[in-house]
Amino acid sequence: MSNSTTKSSNSAPWHRQDFSFFEMVTLRWADNDAYGHINNAHYYSFFDTAVDGFLLSNDLRKYLVAPYQTLVVASECRYNSQVSAPGNIDVGVRVGRLGTSSITYEVAVFTKDSDLAAAQGLFVHVCVDRATQRPAPIPEGFKLALASLPNSAQN
Amino acid sequence: MSNSTTKSSNSAPWHRQDFSFFEMVTLRWADNDAYGHINNAHYYSFFDTAVDGFLLSNDLRKYLVAPYQTLVVASECRYNSQVSAPGNIDVGVRVGRLGTSSITYEVAVFTKDSDLAAAQGLFVHVCVDRATQRPAPIPEGFKLALASLPNSAQN
Amino acid sequence: MSNSTTKSSNSAPWHRQDFSFFEMVTLRWADNDAYGHINNAHYYSFFDTAVDGFLLSNDLRKYLVAPYQTLVVASECRYNSQVSAPGNIDVGVRVGRLGTSSITYEVAVFTKDSDLAAAQGLFVHVCVDRATQRPAPIPEGFKLALASLPNSAQN
Amino acid sequence: MSNSTTKSSNSAPWHRQDFSFFEMVTLRWADNDAYGHINNAHYYSFFDTAVDGFLLSNDLRKYLVAPYQTLVVASECRYNSQVSAPGNIDVGVRVGRLGTSSITYEVAVFTKDSDLAAAQGLFVHVCVDRATQRPAPIPEGFKLALASLPNSAQN
Repeated sequence: MSNSTTKSSNSAPWHRQDFSFFEMVTLRWADNDAYGHINNAHYYSFFDTAVDGFLLSNDLRKYLVAPYQTLVVASECRYNSQVSAPGNIDVGVRVGRLGTSSITYEVAVFTKDSDLAAAQGLFVHVCVDRATQRPAPIPEGFKLALASLPNSAQN
Repeated sequence: MSNSTTKSSNSAPWHRQDFSFFEMVTLRWADNDAYGHINNAHYYSFFDTAVDGFLLSNDLRKYLVAPYQTLVVASECRYNSQVSAPGNIDVGVRVGRLGTSSITYEVAVFTKDSDLAAAQGLFVHVCVDRATQRPAPIPEGFKLALASLPNSAQN
Repeated sequence: MSNSTTKSSNSAPWHRQDFSFFEMVTLRWADNDAYGHINNAHYYSFFDTAVDGFLLSNDLRKYLVAPYQTLVVASECRYNSQVSAPGNIDVGVRVGRLGTSSITYEVAVFTKDSDLAAAQGLFVHVCVDRATQRPAPIPEGFKLALASLPNSAQN
Repeated sequence: MSNSTTKSSNSAPWHRQDFSFFEMVTLRWADNDAYGHINNAHYYSFFDTAVDGFLLSNDLRKYLVAPYQTLVVASECRYNSQVSAPGNIDVGVRVGRLGTSSITYEVAVFTKDSDLAAAQGLFVHVCVDRATQRPAPIPEGFKLALASLPNSAQN
């Protein structure tokens, strides 16, 4: 992950146009914390939900089934600007880096007011064998399916 | 709770057609608990969000401002059938009972598969004076505005 | 809700001394909402956790296993006074009413500052058959075990 | 942050003995997701809570008041092993890197079963001027107070 982390933490805000998949997430009153903005932890729940939506929408869940399972092994977020409920956000998802057994998703939160990400981050899945819970190579079918998607290349 | 006479606990599942306001809420992966369905506590966050949406959508927030404030004083939910993420729900909101200083909202969760509520409950606001935090009469403007809404009568 | 006859909504705040089981729950920064106090929905997560703790602590989980399962069928809370993070709370749990297939837990949140409940409510489990998800009679062993606990009688 | 991110993502699990401040956090039933373990997003709420506890416990909040405010500008977590409710965790907090206006906390989750972190990460505060919400230098008093704490140096 050493060379991927650079992207979310060190670069400028990502652009909406660099994503082709978005999951719409409605904000909830209780997402706002005592500062009146979405608490930092909730962004990871948005990422989680959006990556799941990306997999479902692209019919990719079928490759990540028994005897395989994916677990979140790392995540990160950089908060560029404050967002508050009520309203909804578009969470962009694209595939960043594909390792032998890990998949790094690049994720970003966009509000309707801006094409620059209000928050951006990484969400790293590792493919494991369900029985042993040890890393396993990503199924080839999954890799092939990803290669056919827009924005799936290293960018 | 057997002797409860509240609407939410003792009656049959409520019908979608008996609501005219709905707030759409997207479900999140982390809403599912170890049983693979939405955890019971999250429904209250849906209610909270939907009542806020009801107030905003009907331009009612302007009556509930300084020196007044509304606080949640009671809530309840009956769970009729299980719901799981991913997906989204429509949360119906209607005004149940208007007291001197309290407003009881009747709230219900509908999935796209059914016109019967998957969950239904009550969400009770009390109007308080911000300075003293003691109950205060509901502003007359708020009552008048409510009376002009569909489904605002006792039903 | 004025005509509700449930214990949680109509009676005065419950007393700490009327509970003999407490689950300590630490509050989290994100539990506070924009009003700077614990959001109403989180109380149900406290109840959920405390009832689970009550079952574990009294070695009652062993009666609620396959082919049985318990599901939350109803819940309610009355909020007596505001609580904010940081800090921790004691969540009292006692058995209220035992039906044929339902168990009503009476639950209450106490802060260290007061022996009167800051919030109190009901949490109703229904025992179901896992295969059919239909209500099933509460196992006799569970009833007998409950009868031997302090504060388990109707009160 | 480029040289700090290395620590949480690329190194081996951190050790309990390398922390001197811990905030105990009780796990909640609803923290478990459909996989039966604590959902990845909740770890950030643990971090959030523990950093707040660190500041309170060391009487550091007094330096981060008006006209200043701290905002979370970045966070990251690496998940080393799975944790499930019920139970409680100790969240270790130490100061990693002090920048001109940013403070990087190194945070780690320990269960009672191991002295190796089940999860570890970074939590980055930026000091801002409340009026402009633009970065401001960390108050000198805060830096001095930190320097007197154990484990506050770069390590």
